[in-house]
Amino acid sequence: MTAYEKMTIEELKAEQKALSKKYGDLKSQGLSLDMSRGKPSTDQLDLSDDILTNVSSTKDAFTPSGTDVRNYGVLDGLPECRQLFADLLEVDVKNVIMDGNASLRVMFDYITQCMLPNALDDGWLAEGKPIKFLCPCPGYDRHFAILDYYHIEMISIDMYDDGPDIEQIKEAIKDEQVKGMFCVPKYSNPTGCTYSDEKVKAIAALKPAAKNFRVIWDNAYIIHDLVEEDEADKLLNIFPEAYKNGTEDMFFEVCSTSKITFSGAGVSAIAASERNIQAILERMGRQFISNDKINQLRHIRFLKDIDTLKAHMAKHRAILAPKFKAVDKAFCEGFSESGIATWSKPKGGYFINLDIMDGTAKRCAELCKEAGVTLTAPGAPFPYGKDPRDRNIRVAPSYPTPEELEISAEILVISARLAAIEKLLEKIG
Amino acid sequence: MTAYEKMTIEELKAEQKALSKKYGDLKSQGLSLDMSRGKPSTDQLDLSDDILTNVSSTKDAFTPSGTDVRNYGVLDGLPECRQLFADLLEVDVKNVIMDGNASLRVMFDYITQCMLPNALDDGWLAEGKPIKFLCPCPGYDRHFAILDYYHIEMISIDMYDDGPDIEQIKEAIKDEQVKGMFCVPKYSNPTGCTYSDEKVKAIAALKPAAKNFRVIWDNAYIIHDLVEEDEADKLLNIFPEAYKNGTEDMFFEVCSTSKITFSGAGVSAIAASERNIQAILERMGRQFISNDKINQLRHIRFLKDIDTLKAHMAKHRAILAPKFKAVDKAFCEGFSESGIATWSKPKGGYFINLDIMDGTAKRCAELCKEAGVTLTAPGAPFPYGKDPRDRNIRVAPSYPTPEELEISAEILVISARLAAIEKLLEKIG
Repeated sequence: MTAYEKMTIEELKAEQKALSKKYGDLKSQGLSLDMSRGKPSTDQLDLSDDILTNVSSTKDAFTPSGTDVRNYGVLDGLPECRQLFADLLEVDVKNVIMDGNASLRVMFDYITQCMLPNALDDGWLAEGKPIKFLCPCPGYDRHFAILDYYHIEMISIDMYDDGPDIEQIKEAIKDEQVKGMFCVPKYSNPTGCTYSDEKVKAIAALKPAAKNFRVIWDNAYIIHDLVEEDEADKLLNIFPEAYKNGTEDMFFEVCSTSKITFSGAGVSAIAASERNIQAILERMGRQFISNDKINQLRHIRFLKDIDTLKAHMAKHRAILAPKFKAVDKAFCEGFSESGIATWSKPKGGYFINLDIMDGTAKRCAELCKEAGVTLTAPGAPFPYGKDPRDRNIRVAPSYPTPEELEISAEILVISARLAAIEKLLEKIG
Repeated sequence: MTAYEKMTIEELKAEQKALSKKYGDLKSQGLSLDMSRGKPSTDQLDLSDDILTNVSSTKDAFTPSGTDVRNYGVLDGLPECRQLFADLLEVDVKNVIMDGNASLRVMFDYITQCMLPNALDDGWLAEGKPIKFLCPCPGYDRHFAILDYYHIEMISIDMYDDGPDIEQIKEAIKDEQVKGMFCVPKYSNPTGCTYSDEKVKAIAALKPAAKNFRVIWDNAYIIHDLVEEDEADKLLNIFPEAYKNGTEDMFFEVCSTSKITFSGAGVSAIAASERNIQAILERMGRQFISNDKINQLRHIRFLKDIDTLKAHMAKHRAILAPKFKAVDKAFCEGFSESGIATWSKPKGGYFINLDIMDGTAKRCAELCKEAGVTLTAPGAPFPYGKDPRDRNIRVAPSYPTPEELEISAEILVISARLAAIEKLLEKIG
């Protein structure tokens, strides 16, 4: 294949004709495929079915220390469960609280806490000025949706393979109204990159003008490797670095089992400084008497310890890795030397980040949709849903079956190529 | 027994001596008893153990309409579950959303939503003036704890046997900064009263100066009768009355299964107007992708329909009613004609409301504590924890065993009588 940029009009038109034929054939199949969300597949969910039976009677419902998990109490979560997450997050158990089924809600709630009067200060809103947030992007659309809901101004920060642009961040946080930043530091959504040690250290050493600045350290893919452990990315633990810099209150870390056990029916955990933990517990004590401890007990019985957890994640990997490989193969073959696409080859997480020709992502998604393939809305990984170069497509290979994935990837490739040709012909014409 | 008020100093001193002897004997037993919280007993929890096994495999995890409850999705809750709560709350299913395990968190969250920019307006805080709330009292201490956390000014409203004082409410809501009111309309916490039809109608017809006024209609004990159904209190449904008055947006109703199935591991439901439901869903869509649908499925399989739910609640009643009777008997016998106490004889709910001699509740709780009986902190059922007459004690008979209850009630009676004698002797002296 010749690079599209170097093709003549005639070559482009011939290519367009050939692709349109293939596209028409695929479209006529009336498919309905979905690569839009990072949703586990049914066989992944089946891996955790023991959770459905491991608390199944009165005598099962007691923890080793004698707590009846069916009744009120234990605001911060079962100690056994907190210990597992302390081990996973590499922090002391006193710095860990269990929360509900959705880490997204935990983050929404924490931003809400920071906005309103809380145990630490009067909250961001009380300052009576606009609130701004830094958004390394492409990033997670649901983070931006929280900020958007609260009319918090989003400032884009460029993302590289080793994390966000530190100089841009340093410049931005000179503004006292910049109150925080969202980070997915490991297998970032959607780029799949893991922050380098240098970047983690630089973030731990930030000195924002705002005294109540918070980094939401969303460690969503903390143990979600797509490769063997020795090849997997290693993320430097933020907290020891933060303590060295005296910035430990600046970090709010979350993770959940939504992509470890059941999506929407798992448990989440928070790691934070002693001071922040106190403030969070002060608020939690007004919100509820306890989280669902039965589900916490189910989880600790099932996941047991880090080794058991790792063995469990290896089963997810066995299902997921071939799907990522299939998409990569389809992209390699389909984009060939066309020169119109680059994409990530992540070692973990749930996404492949595809960048196609500038100004063609929306058109590509349209073509996909018409042929029955739903993609994440182009632009979603950017603040206000606006991809400045209209080139980014987040591909989520987890949910479809391998067969569905093969055809979905083919349709995506053909759509991207057709969109590129349209753009080139438009330019020339 | 002579009424204490009519006793001579000598009689009081003789009574004090006799009681002190009994008190000392009881105290020397080194008891540790708790009547402080409305917590179900272990045998009540056992009634719902089928919930622990009714979703126990992959094939169990699908709803009749084919939803895999182990995966993301269905923001507003399983339709089957919403239908059950629509039937219970006597509203249309379109007016019902399922939420998490704690109705307290649902209320905390809704007040938070009302304070901040939301889908309906800029929120109470944006007006830049103090926010005030009406608190019929004695009331639920955890409601007041939410208001206290947010520095919302609490205004006490007197409670009668048929509900709160409507004239006081009408006067208070002339102030535009009065933004809402908490109500536990059925088997109110702690008085046990149920609002009369007249009061419900009057509340539905309120015309507050604040356009964004909200009544938190906490129907916590909606089906928690302590008597047979035909003798039980009936609460008039607020919504038809509200729609008649065009005030439907003013009401936010919640209930949960915390005292139906498992405390802290149940499900909660919201009922509201279409407009409010839309605004709540708009926010929920930023907070999470779904609640724990496995638990929703467990609940609908277990509770099935209103008749099954009623039969289940009859089993709770069989455990609870004798406990309430035992406390009532101990009070009847122990307070006899002393004239120092009145108490409620609720037909449902979780509390007995005990009023002892003015100015003696704190002292009584102290004496109880020294003898090993923990009571709800005196004053807790009032805004800012201050009982203006220092006479109110909330008694929670659900958790202790009948034997524990007998001795706890005896200690409470003796403590109340001792505190009354101290007060009378102080007055005379």
